[in-house]
Amino acid sequence: MDDETHAPVTVIGLGLMGRAPAGALLAAGHPTTVWNRTTSKADQLVAGGARLAPTVDDALVASPLTIICLTDYRAVHDLLGANDVALGGTTLVNLTSGSSTQARDTARWAGQRGARYLDGAVMAIPSTIGTAEAVIPHSGPEEDCQAHEPTLRALGTVTHLGADHGLAALYDVAGLTMMWGVLNAWLQGTALLRTAGVDAATYAPFARRLAVGVAGWLPGYAEQVDRGRFPAEVSALETDARAMAHVVEESEALGVNAELPKLIKAMADRAIAAGHGGEQYPVLIEEFGKPGNG
Amino acid sequence: MDDETHAPVTVIGLGLMGRAPAGALLAAGHPTTVWNRTTSKADQLVAGGARLAPTVDDALVASPLTIICLTDYRAVHDLLGANDVALGGTTLVNLTSGSSTQARDTARWAGQRGARYLDGAVMAIPSTIGTAEAVIPHSGPEEDCQAHEPTLRALGTVTHLGADHGLAALYDVAGLTMMWGVLNAWLQGTALLRTAGVDAATYAPFARRLAVGVAGWLPGYAEQVDRGRFPAEVSALETDARAMAHVVEESEALGVNAELPKLIKAMADRAIAAGHGGEQYPVLIEEFGKPGNG
Ligand SMILES: NC(=O)c1ccc[n+]([C@@H]2O[C@H](COP(=O)([O-])OP(=O)(O)OC[C@H]3O[C@@H](n4cnc5c(N)ncnc54)[C@H](OP(=O)(O)O)[C@@H]3O)[C@@H](O)[C@H]2O)c1
Ligand SMILES: NC(=O)c1ccc[n+]([C@@H]2O[C@H](COP(=O)([O-])OP(=O)(O)OC[C@H]3O[C@@H](n4cnc5c(N)ncnc54)[C@H](OP(=O)(O)O)[C@@H]3O)[C@@H](O)[C@H]2O)c1
Repeated sequence: MDDETHAPVTVIGLGLMGRAPAGALLAAGHPTTVWNRTTSKADQLVAGGARLAPTVDDALVASPLTIICLTDYRAVHDLLGANDVALGGTTLVNLTSGSSTQARDTARWAGQRGARYLDGAVMAIPSTIGTAEAVIPHSGPEEDCQAHEPTLRALGTVTHLGADHGLAALYDVAGLTMMWGVLNAWLQGTALLRTAGVDAATYAPFARRLAVGVAGWLPGYAEQVDRGRFPAEVSALETDARAMAHVVEESEALGVNAELPKLIKAMADRAIAAGHGGEQYPVLIEEFGKPGNG
Repeated sequence: MDDETHAPVTVIGLGLMGRAPAGALLAAGHPTTVWNRTTSKADQLVAGGARLAPTVDDALVASPLTIICLTDYRAVHDLLGANDVALGGTTLVNLTSGSSTQARDTARWAGQRGARYLDGAVMAIPSTIGTAEAVIPHSGPEEDCQAHEPTLRALGTVTHLGADHGLAALYDVAGLTMMWGVLNAWLQGTALLRTAGVDAATYAPFARRLAVGVAGWLPGYAEQVDRGRFPAEVSALETDARAMAHVVEESEALGVNAELPKLIKAMADRAIAAGHGGEQYPVLIEEFGKPGNG
């Protein structure tokens, strides 16, 4: 085994999420130091071989790399700022969820205190941490990501998004939107089919295939977005809008919630009003890219 | 070759969509009779071996099976009703898009005129007709679907949804909702990432993997819907709602449209207000299943 796989690591924050990376690092053979405000949350990890640091300062100096995972960025600043903690020479990997602005501000703040800084997004649930299923993209200097990649990959599928520290937060919100987008579209369809006595289990595999099929169009549609040209190769937005009206009517006629179909149609209608009725669906990027009426 | 693969077929309606099944049936070796109000639209099919019927009546008696694909159900009734057309003994497969109520009403109407009736939904674009990629579910009596399956499968992936004639229309609107649901979620994410200079092509493969991943949860989530019990095995709705607020804030802060994130949050908030904050996401089926405020 090479040395890198046994680099010492510190984990600060042992809530529902933070204890998962700590456990995965221990399992991968890393000497692991932990700290949590409520000390008892470290008990199981200590039983598994982790060292409980008596103070945050002690935790930070114990390892060249510290992973921090707290409720929010305010908690991070309260903890690492207030105590006049020495961050010089350390590399912080912040897995706390927040906005892209908070991530960029925290990167600057950490830099001023002499720390190297990566911002990560945990796009996963605790039980998958330590498996490839856990998607954890990082943003910040590529060399820092590379230097610690042998350690970070113990957490899951770790990728480097780019030097802009805000990217992990942005991919995170984009990913959450995709998650709820698929789930809501599925629930809308499930509600429609239930009016005819079709159960959710019958519809789900059909919905799954549809979602996978449409997902396969995205790279091609992305080319239209990047070129800024949207020829109606498959169908024109005004044709889509007629079908959207039909989905709204069907939902209303069946007493099912019509808000999602109405929003879909409202955005298309606005693009059509702006003169894009003869273009293809991805032209809606112009509506999504600016503040709406909602 | 068995006889069934060469059963004669009639296609009525040769618009952008209707001419595609006619072409696929010809290509599969079926003696194909066609009719269209505007005769010239049959020219290419006739050159390919189709027979142009001089009247609708002539078209209907030419084959035991007639596929009809017009603008809407009104056109179907105008055409087959007004002329006192003889439908007795024929099997109609209606691929015209419409509502579940229109499909059920038309099934009754056709039955009163002595025709057998299947209602189909073309969940495909014309260029894919004749390939497995074209998903064309049918609803109506199973024996009629089975009897004509060897012919219908020339059009694409043909499935039988059930005896209720409204099912094809319902699967169609459910499928459209999934399509726009995935596309809009992708556009929202693309718009967010473009604020940081990430191009659509960079984000698309990531979005694709996410959509495919979430699609894989649907069968499991469907079990919760069918049981009507939503234990928070992965996360509770009130935890999700905090992340939803964060997506709304990030969208607004970046000057990106926030209507979709706001709708996502509004529906979750309503379910939480109804006492479901400690349950898992699919509990939202209760909100989707009833008329909303929108
Ligand atoms: N749980 C998930 O499924 C999940 C998934 C993806 C991302 N995340 C993100 O991961 C982060 C942590 O979530 P979680 O589920 O672990 O939350 P949690 O269970 O509520 O844990 C919060 C952690 O933050 C600590 N903390 C809060 N304020 C603090 C302060 N002022 N000083 C010191 N410590 C403080 C808590 O310490 P105490 O133990 O002393 O209270 C605890 O360790 C969040 O940003 C969340 O969005 C979570
Ligand atoms: N195109 C697609 O990508 C697509 C995809 C899925 C589903 N569909 C559905 O397929 C159906 C047909 O669409 P399309 O794209 O083929 O439309 P289209 O190109 O506009 O063709 C409409 C057809 O209906 C005929 N028609 C309309 N009113 C009529 C009347 N009163 N009497 C007789 N014929 C009449 C037209 O005849 P004329 O030629 O004489 O006008 C033409 O054959 C629609 O329900 C559509 O929603 C289409």
